[in-house]
Amino acid sequence: MRDFSADHSALALNTASLGHNLDGYGAGWPPERVIDACAARGFGSIVFWRREIGTRAAKIGERVRAAGLSVAGLCRTPFLVGGEATDRQAVMDGAKASVDMAAALGAPVLTIVVGGVHPGTKGTAASLKILADRVAELAPYAQACGVRLALEPLHPVYAGNRSCLTTLRDAVDLCEKVGAPNLGIAVDVYHVWWDSDLETQLRRAGPGRLFGYHLCDWLADTTDVLLDRGMMGDGVADLKAIRAAVEGAGYAGPCEVEIFSAGNWWKRDPNEVLDVIVERFRTLC
Amino acid sequence: MRDFSADHSALALNTASLGHNLDGYGAGWPPERVIDACAARGFGSIVFWRREIGTRAAKIGERVRAAGLSVAGLCRTPFLVGGEATDRQAVMDGAKASVDMAAALGAPVLTIVVGGVHPGTKGTAASLKILADRVAELAPYAQACGVRLALEPLHPVYAGNRSCLTTLRDAVDLCEKVGAPNLGIAVDVYHVWWDSDLETQLRRAGPGRLFGYHLCDWLADTTDVLLDRGMMGDGVADLKAIRAAVEGAGYAGPCEVEIFSAGNWWKRDPNEVLDVIVERFRTLC
Repeated sequence: MRDFSADHSALALNTASLGHNLDGYGAGWPPERVIDACAARGFGSIVFWRREIGTRAAKIGERVRAAGLSVAGLCRTPFLVGGEATDRQAVMDGAKASVDMAAALGAPVLTIVVGGVHPGTKGTAASLKILADRVAELAPYAQACGVRLALEPLHPVYAGNRSCLTTLRDAVDLCEKVGAPNLGIAVDVYHVWWDSDLETQLRRAGPGRLFGYHLCDWLADTTDVLLDRGMMGDGVADLKAIRAAVEGAGYAGPCEVEIFSAGNWWKRDPNEVLDVIVERFRTLC
Repeated sequence: MRDFSADHSALALNTASLGHNLDGYGAGWPPERVIDACAARGFGSIVFWRREIGTRAAKIGERVRAAGLSVAGLCRTPFLVGGEATDRQAVMDGAKASVDMAAALGAPVLTIVVGGVHPGTKGTAASLKILADRVAELAPYAQACGVRLALEPLHPVYAGNRSCLTTLRDAVDLCEKVGAPNLGIAVDVYHVWWDSDLETQLRRAGPGRLFGYHLCDWLADTTDVLLDRGMMGDGVADLKAIRAAVEGAGYAGPCEVEIFSAGNWWKRDPNEVLDVIVERFRTLC
């Protein structure tokens, strides 16, 4: 297991930790300011959201690298299945446009949050089939662009309307079904911390399928399952044990801090948030 | 698979569907009125909550049977682990008192909602060990009282503060670890509908461990994970498929409708709620 106490170059900032994933939240720093603040604190990389990038993907990517950092990834494709994804052509066009943006940014990984139960179906099985069909079309396109696709299983609380893909087990199944070399998985402690099957499924995935590891914490008395994630150490997830399992399965990539926190961290000065992230990462993760 | 379209004697009312599980909600019907309303509609059985029973357990049980119904179960033990369960002796005393109440009521099954992550620990593994120790003490006591104990795995959204037991898989593991003949599982569609491992784990459990089957629905755009459950048919759970799996594993007992719905069903006339339950059960479950 890597020792981050003296070297936190594996630390990546997901800009959602500053509220940059949603309109109306956060301090609204432009990407350049985020880049400089991360570089000053020894972060190794940054993950942006599409809404921050707009038409400046290449320029922002260059700016990151000029600051001595790398772009670890881009969040995320539009939903591929579910109520917002009924027009297949529009879905594929939107997904391919997000691949293009990742390529222009120089992001090696594009995250996929898949979408919920498809209209007219019940349960998750039918939706997962539709998803597999669409991912199978997207993967070769992304491969040609030099982009890897990371399926992110979300916590089962989102199964209805955000992610019919809820467990690492289902994500590995989907990877095996589609069989594309650039298709893998992002593991987020918020979504998987409760899962006693995690270590087994991480080993099933292996280093060839593990494309990302996301950090935050699950607050025991969470008030909002979308926007009340905890800072590492403030919740009940066993962060050390999860990272041991992730690294035991062969993962050696960035550790991306992604904290949706409308009522707490998004209200603070981003400088404070970044300082706390570094401290917690070095001591508790 | 049983056909309920012409015979709904397998239908059980959990009185939480009328808001009777929480202070300040529901129509406040006394148990006698609930019993008569269920008898008039052909329900086969009723599941009560402790707060409705008080010191009248034997009398209410007799009243149920006199109306031609049976008591299917009692909800529930106090939490056995987690922040409200730090005093082991108090926890065991409270749990045993709820066993006594179930026995006096003539309830064959007492449900256990286990409680969340235990103070001073992270993740669920340590809490599940504490839980196993306490269940192992409770089971022989319940056996001597003629009461079966049904562990109810709750949706992973509750893992922090209500149930460190989140999957059927973990529940079967716990049953095997404790090994008591009167220890089994209650399967609730609200908690398990998203789980692609369900059928496999139901078969692992088998008829000897399946002590209850609970019905409601998961609303795709749920507004409250505690008190916004859906009426069967209004959500995205594949109710027919789940019952097929439950019965395929050998379950042939009551189907207990348990709908926590502060904003909708608890505001309606209980007569309407009961009528809708019967109709949905006969046609959609």
